[in-house]
Amino acid sequence: MPKTQDHTHTQRISLDHDFEVLYEKACEAGIDTAFSRAKQTPVPCPFGSAGVCCRHCLEGPCRIGLNGKGPQEGICGANGDTIVARNLLTMMIEGAAGHAEHGRETALALLEASEGHSDYQIKGVEKLYQVAAGLGIETNGKAVEDIGKQVALKALEDFQKQAGAMNWLTLHAQQQSIDKWDELGITPVNIHLEISKAVTRTSMGCDADPINLLLGCLTMGLVDGFGGLHLSSDLQDILFGVPKLVKSNFRLGVIKKEMVNIAVHGHVPLLSEKIVEWSRKLSEEAKAAGAAGINVVGICCSGNEMLMRHGIPAASSFSSQELVIVTGMLEAMIVDVQCIMPGIQKVAECYHTEIITTLPYVKIAGSTHVNFHTDKADKAAQDIVRKAIANFPKRDHQKITSFTGTVEAYAGFSNEQIIEALSALNKEDPLKPLLDAITSGAIRGVAAIVGCTNVREFQDWGNVTVAKELLKNNVLVVATGCSAHSLAKHNLMNMQGLEYCGESLRGVLKAIGQAAGLESLPPTLHMGSCVDNSRPADLLTAVANRLGVEVKDLPAVGSCPETHSPKALVIGTYFLANGVDVHVGVNPQVSGSQFVTDVLCNGAKDDGLNLEKLFGGKLIYEKDPVKAAAILLRRIEEKRLALGLSSKLESAI
Amino acid sequence: MPKTQDHTHTQRISLDHDFEVLYEKACEAGIDTAFSRAKQTPVPCPFGSAGVCCRHCLEGPCRIGLNGKGPQEGICGANGDTIVARNLLTMMIEGAAGHAEHGRETALALLEASEGHSDYQIKGVEKLYQVAAGLGIETNGKAVEDIGKQVALKALEDFQKQAGAMNWLTLHAQQQSIDKWDELGITPVNIHLEISKAVTRTSMGCDADPINLLLGCLTMGLVDGFGGLHLSSDLQDILFGVPKLVKSNFRLGVIKKEMVNIAVHGHVPLLSEKIVEWSRKLSEEAKAAGAAGINVVGICCSGNEMLMRHGIPAASSFSSQELVIVTGMLEAMIVDVQCIMPGIQKVAECYHTEIITTLPYVKIAGSTHVNFHTDKADKAAQDIVRKAIANFPKRDHQKITSFTGTVEAYAGFSNEQIIEALSALNKEDPLKPLLDAITSGAIRGVAAIVGCTNVREFQDWGNVTVAKELLKNNVLVVATGCSAHSLAKHNLMNMQGLEYCGESLRGVLKAIGQAAGLESLPPTLHMGSCVDNSRPADLLTAVANRLGVEVKDLPAVGSCPETHSPKALVIGTYFLANGVDVHVGVNPQVSGSQFVTDVLCNGAKDDGLNLEKLFGGKLIYEKDPVKAAAILLRRIEEKRLALGLSSKLESAI
Repeated sequence: MPKTQDHTHTQRISLDHDFEVLYEKACEAGIDTAFSRAKQTPVPCPFGSAGVCCRHCLEGPCRIGLNGKGPQEGICGANGDTIVARNLLTMMIEGAAGHAEHGRETALALLEASEGHSDYQIKGVEKLYQVAAGLGIETNGKAVEDIGKQVALKALEDFQKQAGAMNWLTLHAQQQSIDKWDELGITPVNIHLEISKAVTRTSMGCDADPINLLLGCLTMGLVDGFGGLHLSSDLQDILFGVPKLVKSNFRLGVIKKEMVNIAVHGHVPLLSEKIVEWSRKLSEEAKAAGAAGINVVGICCSGNEMLMRHGIPAASSFSSQELVIVTGMLEAMIVDVQCIMPGIQKVAECYHTEIITTLPYVKIAGSTHVNFHTDKADKAAQDIVRKAIANFPKRDHQKITSFTGTVEAYAGFSNEQIIEALSALNKEDPLKPLLDAITSGAIRGVAAIVGCTNVREFQDWGNVTVAKELLKNNVLVVATGCSAHSLAKHNLMNMQGLEYCGESLRGVLKAIGQAAGLESLPPTLHMGSCVDNSRPADLLTAVANRLGVEVKDLPAVGSCPETHSPKALVIGTYFLANGVDVHVGVNPQVSGSQFVTDVLCNGAKDDGLNLEKLFGGKLIYEKDPVKAAAILLRRIEEKRLALGLSSKLESAI
Repeated sequence: MPKTQDHTHTQRISLDHDFEVLYEKACEAGIDTAFSRAKQTPVPCPFGSAGVCCRHCLEGPCRIGLNGKGPQEGICGANGDTIVARNLLTMMIEGAAGHAEHGRETALALLEASEGHSDYQIKGVEKLYQVAAGLGIETNGKAVEDIGKQVALKALEDFQKQAGAMNWLTLHAQQQSIDKWDELGITPVNIHLEISKAVTRTSMGCDADPINLLLGCLTMGLVDGFGGLHLSSDLQDILFGVPKLVKSNFRLGVIKKEMVNIAVHGHVPLLSEKIVEWSRKLSEEAKAAGAAGINVVGICCSGNEMLMRHGIPAASSFSSQELVIVTGMLEAMIVDVQCIMPGIQKVAECYHTEIITTLPYVKIAGSTHVNFHTDKADKAAQDIVRKAIANFPKRDHQKITSFTGTVEAYAGFSNEQIIEALSALNKEDPLKPLLDAITSGAIRGVAAIVGCTNVREFQDWGNVTVAKELLKNNVLVVATGCSAHSLAKHNLMNMQGLEYCGESLRGVLKAIGQAAGLESLPPTLHMGSCVDNSRPADLLTAVANRLGVEVKDLPAVGSCPETHSPKALVIGTYFLANGVDVHVGVNPQVSGSQFVTDVLCNGAKDDGLNLEKLFGGKLIYEKDPVKAAAILLRRIEEKRLALGLSSKLESAI
């Protein structure tokens, strides 16, 4: 068992011992990795860390003196509140832009597939009809391709329209939320327009009102949530099918010594889907090269996407991506976009591993580039898989470190899959068993553990600890992204982990699981990649609608214990705009402004305008995962109390 | 005469003595301004200044050790080349986004005016026909409003299309340039799409190839040039008319003690046009309040826009904007977007001046906000002008400092105006007299002095010195933006300044001017605001087309001696993508990467890929304006030589 009691970790990098072995190996071989670089700079710049560094013009850079010492304004007169709020908005923009491009590429892929000039076809026909109906597209008597085209064009409209609200927002949001956003003037019109306008407002001599800038952050949250997450998940489900229950494996044992090992790393599943397909088709060529076959493993969210739809095993979350190469058994790492450490190239140069970039706007100096486009996807995937096969004989067997242990994990918990499981208990009203469990208190609430791993954090510790604390207290936990890797690796997505659940939660998981033909549902439900945070959001909306309340009223929380990515911040902001409390375990770089901190983190009863007053939820920054879980549990009980459900706080009234 | 021989300026802030008086006054009154804040932090952060600070994720901030000491990679493995190139791209994005929104708002205003639900009408009908023809819009038998709508929709397409090249690029670029950009894969598809995609490539774990990132900078240059500058200028000319020769005044004497003084500050002329209109219409109300009338003065590019089309006098360029308030005679400063120092609010609070923000996405804490939209523009302008009138009696007469001196300046040199002037010499082939002067060597070349003033620089010194050096050497100088303010204030836009011109240049200016009914053309030609850098670009394209060469072949240079704004960098990049040499006098924050510096600044004969090899021009970073001018003069002679024109370098072959 991992040493989960170790709170200090001064010399350790991961709760996953396999990566510690590889880290030692890399250090001994003189190979730098993100973990070693982080140790070389134990204390990052205090100004940047506090959010008070401004680099928006050539009069600067400027920075606000910390703790009231030194200049309290930049040269232009922007004060710490403005600079901190503006930097936070910049983080939001960077997060949303990646998800926006993910959505747009998927929309174009759907359009091309619908028009027949693409290597992709529509596999999720039922989802297509469902989304089309939601968008008000007439489907009667129309061919699937016609409907697909209409849906794709509606998606592209969300990058083009000059007035009104985004189609995907209207499709997924509760009307009460839309009314609130309209009233505040934060409803996004079009994804690219809002991103570009937000860049403008952060630029020199533009928005200097911290409240206005924070409202801009919320717009970015909505852009990200609807235009990034929901749009991407919906269209991917249409193109590739809705995820269904799968069983697969985690940890480094998934890399097989006798196989051609290909890692898919990044986010947009368009390419990874084809790599998986062609790895199966070209297996004989691998055998001809002396391997037993081709083994695709996942890293980061490409890993989650391939796990959810194909049961592809997962080798690593974000922070340890370089160390996968140090096994000496990786023939190629195929990357698309986001969270790809440039450091992989230097590590790969110490082995036979080929790093292959695939998008024109994401390259790494020294890496191989194979351009990928949907109309030549099969060709690109074949080229790439053959490059990997060609690398197999180049292995240096002296440099191989193999692992045998893997951890079984269930995944594929789309809402459709959850509803299907619940249907076995109540076919007419599938949500009812879940609602009954919540209202009775057998389940106290729902938590989504999401986000990343971060080389400055002890890998997996925060994610796993928050999850265990919540499970113990009978909170239903769902997970996405690299957080899901953490939970899966530590037995929280297989039946072993049921021991961590409180008794009443375990009873519910077993009842639902057994009705669906399993021993139980696993302790935590893997809902997918980071863009699939749309799925927990949809689950909450469905539950709220069924209860006749707003999402903000539900005993539901989000937790992001080990984030490194601005994407996690903007996803969190989407949940905040819906009134859901969001915990982050990593410094969100706003400490340089008490004002901004108060707006984000203060409670509804505190003085001044703040998020909780406006929307019903707040940001919780707490590094200690045990303390964080305690805060989240209390917030769940507070919301239960407000809803009139049994609450552990009742006595406190 | 200003002390132009003073190279040290240790205690001085401006070549314009009036601002030095006000700066002293502010210091004595304990009022902080950008100049005093700059002096408080004489040395900005060396990491940010070198471009090696990275704040794209929550593992950082990271920074590359300078001079090879300290970490040479960020935690993710990004090295100094990647980080510097990425930060440069971020600057480009921020510059382009502002101009993009400027263009889009103008396009929407044209659409609304064409549809008749707006307070604006189409005044530049001839320009409308010309642009429509260029865009391939059928105009025969169509109403002006119909054509206006078609043009506006074509402009909006440049924010919406998902394939192909921007309409405005095809409209203005030389085909040889388009071919080159296509080959490099840098041709922009749509303005917002490219901005959003560029944000993605700068975000954590995306583009890590410095060459690819620098190509991304060039795409931003094209987005800015065609989607920001040309699109904005064209549509403004259509809405408000093409600028014609005007005579007006510069310096603080333009603020009148007996008048209600309103400063318009910012960039998009939609609001300023209405302020000017209503200031005239409400003059009686000002008289009723005890004033002699209403006096609108311009700051920054709003100033340039109002000068070019209405002869409104100009009070200040960027860096001294706060000091205008210190006159104690400003009833209101109306701001829209870009280059607006938040510091104006605190200074205004020391006087009776009201700062009025007008756009929902640009606010300043403590300022009055009057929301502006084109369909209620008259109402908003009236409200604002009346607020100013109401402030007139609130003046504290003890705090007034008035100035009497003004400097006369000619402006309004649109290309149409220049062609009209040249037509007096040659009606059939108006460009011929200009070409003859260039080919004969009477004019050695053309220089555009553009950009800003910067509080870290001795105000006006760089702009004026570069101009004088070039004029002396018979280079035709045009100017835009805050640089134009500098030149105008120091007699370079009136006949006094002819003394600074070399003899042959003076002869050409006089010949053209006299044919057009003036004593002479002024020594430098004011072509407008920063978005009006489209005008020198169009002038160069017209000259190149007439000569049958590419723009890159012309003896033409751009110089930006005192920039503070990323907008100037991206405008410069647009010119670089067209093969025009660009000088900047302020650290462009790339010194942390020798590689990036080499790509930008090395000559065609140097090793490795660089801008000059690809396009024909390079970036010249030189702080000393005299040295900078010498380099530009040499570049002009080199291009003359390559063109087969008489060159001072002939002997060197």
